[in-house]
Amino acid sequence: MRANDERVTPIKSRIEASLLDAIGRAELGAPPKLAAAIRYAVFPGGARIRPHLCLAVAEACGSSESALAEGMASAIELLHCASLVHDDLPCFDDANLRRGKPSVHRAYGQPLAVLTGDALLVLSFETLARAAISRPTRLGGLITALARAAGAPYGLIAGQGWESEASPSLEHYHRAKTGSLFVAATTGGALAAGRDPGPWRRMGELLGQGYQVADDLLDALALPHEAGKPTRQDALLDRPNAVVELGVSGAIVRLRDLVSHAAAAVPECPGAGPLRDLVMQVGERLVPAGLKQTAA
Amino acid sequence: MRANDERVTPIKSRIEASLLDAIGRAELGAPPKLAAAIRYAVFPGGARIRPHLCLAVAEACGSSESALAEGMASAIELLHCASLVHDDLPCFDDANLRRGKPSVHRAYGQPLAVLTGDALLVLSFETLARAAISRPTRLGGLITALARAAGAPYGLIAGQGWESEASPSLEHYHRAKTGSLFVAATTGGALAAGRDPGPWRRMGELLGQGYQVADDLLDALALPHEAGKPTRQDALLDRPNAVVELGVSGAIVRLRDLVSHAAAAVPECPGAGPLRDLVMQVGERLVPAGLKQTAA
Repeated sequence: MRANDERVTPIKSRIEASLLDAIGRAELGAPPKLAAAIRYAVFPGGARIRPHLCLAVAEACGSSESALAEGMASAIELLHCASLVHDDLPCFDDANLRRGKPSVHRAYGQPLAVLTGDALLVLSFETLARAAISRPTRLGGLITALARAAGAPYGLIAGQGWESEASPSLEHYHRAKTGSLFVAATTGGALAAGRDPGPWRRMGELLGQGYQVADDLLDALALPHEAGKPTRQDALLDRPNAVVELGVSGAIVRLRDLVSHAAAAVPECPGAGPLRDLVMQVGERLVPAGLKQTAA
Repeated sequence: MRANDERVTPIKSRIEASLLDAIGRAELGAPPKLAAAIRYAVFPGGARIRPHLCLAVAEACGSSESALAEGMASAIELLHCASLVHDDLPCFDDANLRRGKPSVHRAYGQPLAVLTGDALLVLSFETLARAAISRPTRLGGLITALARAAGAPYGLIAGQGWESEASPSLEHYHRAKTGSLFVAATTGGALAAGRDPGPWRRMGELLGQGYQVADDLLDALALPHEAGKPTRQDALLDRPNAVVELGVSGAIVRLRDLVSHAAAAVPECPGAGPLRDLVMQVGERLVPAGLKQTAA
């Protein structure tokens, strides 16, 4: 999330430092190939949009517990990386490319790709628990938020499970596959700051829906080297895509609409104004380059 | 763990009730096939030896927090079930049989088997967090113990990762693959009871080593329908096995020796005597039927 250079640099470096610390703790003494595959799956990262969102919400809530917010932000990113590694496996998307380099199973083989995803799931919870040492009473709510975003019935893993059903619930599918980690980011930021997470759900849901539309645009319009991953997969795998449903202009209108609603859904808090500005800027960054003028 | 009928029945039913509750919460609203596969992976169970051990230690420590100990016991069993599902996958052991029925990928296909293991990992942490609501300050230590038993560098997943190395550390391999969940069971039982976990490590390590020898005997001597899973796999996959190293009699002597040392390693606590008796009885149950007189 790029508000301005003064703000971006510290948030970005805090996230990378926290992730580096987590990965470093998993490596020492581990089987060398597994350790290398775990690091490969997390670095270099993508936009880190979910952990940025989590930290931005915690700051807007006036959090003084930066270690706890950083732990939750890292936990969410580790969970996201775990899901990418498993979703890319041959039995799911069979994707050769991720973040512009060979996917983990292409680089390290299937056994280590399964174990890398497993290890990142565990590391996610472990990282959060370590970050909560000075605030133990906040840990339960954060673990629960993280687990709900990840597991069954409504998290990422359940979302992937809908692909095995003959008649999937599309609402459940998208909410689980994309929305759940955005909701964990906004509610987790609030929880880390000691705030009621309830009012922060809606903002996360709307941003998740917006991000899904942006991902649909990328899949429909970008080349693999631009996206850093295989594209045209929705058509190939017969998955729903907003561009097919609404056209390119319609999808961009819908993306901007969702982002505006997400900004308006920021609850009252000490830093609500700057957070709303940040959401609008991030939303505009989700519109693929070259289409900025479309339906503006 | 069978101490006597009065003791066994309540412990066994408490574990099954806690697992049923956890699985029930994951099912409602989940993709139906994934929900069915998750239940299939956990019920009917095996000996549930690890959760029994956890509850027995918590009781020996004089725990009055039965919900927390049950949550940790269930979390350990869910983690164990997750590892069985993933270890059976074609890219690892390619096992067709588990607990006397088709393995999860045989019954539900590979995609749902990967997701079932993932969902059980997440459910493990979620179940523990829910159980700790009334004792939030104990949650951090329990999550950390669970994560260490599961992940990298020294847990179950890392243990499986040693199979991808040309020169695995056998000590690390066995400690991680078998020992880690026994250590989580003994230290977790103590942590749930509010006790220092440190003195309980050694007992868990010794029981884990004993269980590994028992598993080696089963692999070397039993038929698949007796073991409920493929046997002679260590020879087939060129894995170390205590029967090859020590012979049948030697392996049984080693098993009984480890169990005796585990019983002697029970730290002083209100219920140390009955717990030592229980360990000895469980240990004897690990000797395969028909060999009870061997090297007795």
